[in-house]
Amino acid sequence: MSNKRILSGMRPTGKLHIGHYTGALENWVNHQNATVPDGGRRYDTFFLVADYHSLTTSLDTTDIDTNTIDMVTDWLAAGIDPEKSPIFRQSRVKQHTELFLVFSMLITASRLERNPTLKDQVRDLNMETLTYGHLGYPVLQAADILLYKGNTVPVGEDQIPHVEITREIARRFNNQYPLGDGSGVFEEPEPKITRFARLLGLDGKAKMSKSLGNTILLSDGPDDIMQKMRKAVTDTGKIRKNDPGHPEVCTVFSYHERFSPADTVAAIEQDCRSGALGCVDCKKMCSAAISRELQPLHEQRKIYAERPDMVRDILIDGEERARHVAESTMQEVRGAMKLG
Amino acid sequence: MSNKRILSGMRPTGKLHIGHYTGALENWVNHQNATVPDGGRRYDTFFLVADYHSLTTSLDTTDIDTNTIDMVTDWLAAGIDPEKSPIFRQSRVKQHTELFLVFSMLITASRLERNPTLKDQVRDLNMETLTYGHLGYPVLQAADILLYKGNTVPVGEDQIPHVEITREIARRFNNQYPLGDGSGVFEEPEPKITRFARLLGLDGKAKMSKSLGNTILLSDGPDDIMQKMRKAVTDTGKIRKNDPGHPEVCTVFSYHERFSPADTVAAIEQDCRSGALGCVDCKKMCSAAISRELQPLHEQRKIYAERPDMVRDILIDGEERARHVAESTMQEVRGAMKLG
Repeated sequence: MSNKRILSGMRPTGKLHIGHYTGALENWVNHQNATVPDGGRRYDTFFLVADYHSLTTSLDTTDIDTNTIDMVTDWLAAGIDPEKSPIFRQSRVKQHTELFLVFSMLITASRLERNPTLKDQVRDLNMETLTYGHLGYPVLQAADILLYKGNTVPVGEDQIPHVEITREIARRFNNQYPLGDGSGVFEEPEPKITRFARLLGLDGKAKMSKSLGNTILLSDGPDDIMQKMRKAVTDTGKIRKNDPGHPEVCTVFSYHERFSPADTVAAIEQDCRSGALGCVDCKKMCSAAISRELQPLHEQRKIYAERPDMVRDILIDGEERARHVAESTMQEVRGAMKLG
Repeated sequence: MSNKRILSGMRPTGKLHIGHYTGALENWVNHQNATVPDGGRRYDTFFLVADYHSLTTSLDTTDIDTNTIDMVTDWLAAGIDPEKSPIFRQSRVKQHTELFLVFSMLITASRLERNPTLKDQVRDLNMETLTYGHLGYPVLQAADILLYKGNTVPVGEDQIPHVEITREIARRFNNQYPLGDGSGVFEEPEPKITRFARLLGLDGKAKMSKSLGNTILLSDGPDDIMQKMRKAVTDTGKIRKNDPGHPEVCTVFSYHERFSPADTVAAIEQDCRSGALGCVDCKKMCSAAISRELQPLHEQRKIYAERPDMVRDILIDGEERARHVAESTMQEVRGAMKLG
């Protein structure tokens, strides 16, 4: 039996922060390296720079190339192995747009307008300004996944409606254009509900986000991290060093929970509550824990950050491999459709 | 100054009828062969088999290949010269879908919903069943035209709203992604209002259409034409041979106006009104006139109808040439967008 296939992607947003790491990238690396009992890989993994998707919310592409290289450098630093997993830009594999067009005929416009995730996105935005491409982004996502015969889709709860659209499209394609033996070109992919450990922003906001300026970057060194940590929001009721604190409302403690060893976390919780541990020392420990975790990433990162051409070559190689798989799927698609 | 460019296309509907010929194909041949005073060509012409467009109204592709070959055979018979004009299938030139995706980000969904031609099309159809791809077909049409830098678009009055959408998209692309010198990748194409001589159906209906079974095919021989002509609707008030007739309400007379020489038409009109000419003789004359006009097409048609592989080779060659132009445009597009 061939491996399960996973296609994962991110929009090219530039240097990644530790929220990206704990929220997605770490899972990607786990999927890439997961094995089955005989030692083989559990999944074939494909990693997509979703540059076309980024056009749905901003047409400004001034920094898209730099942002792509910076982001992919972080992927590589985090342990994405380009030998195992093709890494590629969506805009460089024309088959994405080809399958997008075919799929666009298999779903109604009103079905897409009822997409709950879209409704959230345009709540602030005026529906009048919604572009045609933005309306169709679950269709492009379906093309991204099915082009590589992705059959497992790691998603958070809120993304399930998208997987449902992909499943509907796969089903409709198979029904409309069955193969000679009555089977279909596509497998309906299964959502794999994945708990993403979201990190709070340094300012205590629910999300780390570049636009909010509340991030720690994967590329930040120990000094940068210590600097940023100084401004991190803690328990506002703990004013003097020896005031008893409430870790459950403290941003820094939430980082400890993710980056410090379990026994340290327990000790910190106790010492914070008792007042034995002040915020300054606690932040130092937290910075050190994050730096420790990022240390191997930094070593790996250096290799690529100094050689952007190497990153470009990795993309070009990944694009060639992706194109190969994509073209083979498109040949099946065209064959089933008797197109040309 | 380089030639003006024209991209024209038809959905692959199989063998064409004389309504296609007088309505479009004849114009295509004229555009292809038009010259400027120095003897050069007035236009560079590109002819598109719009197979993706046909998916907007029917997903059934069972006969799409046969229909393509039959239709292109008629194009060639009518005088489309593949040396002068690349002939190609939309689905074989991936760049159409690539530019479609880019353009999909440059127009709002509500703008497309307000497209009057679409509203006509879905008047009977339920808007709930309108596919996402159907909603976007003016976007695909804009990609078809601009991929070849089409700057002249021959259209009937009713098609002007589509050209307007193409112009809007060209303008938005140029504004959003200007070239270094401030100019844009695309020229806004100009509509060239063309009077299409529509032919009535044999049953007197306003349109000749395969689904209505009221056509004379370009490939029909003199006997076929005479057979079909027998059933043609004439002036229902002219019951006996010598009854005076009313040419202005007679389908057959409308064909004479198109296919018979002017002096013959004048004589027919007079003799019909006076009752000197009966319908049977008039229909014989009409059949002969149509057969005479189709005679050179039939000779040309034979060459290709007996050699479908030659038609296929013409498509493959045309697709290669189209791809070359299309890829060069896409390189400008990607360059302006800084994509990859």
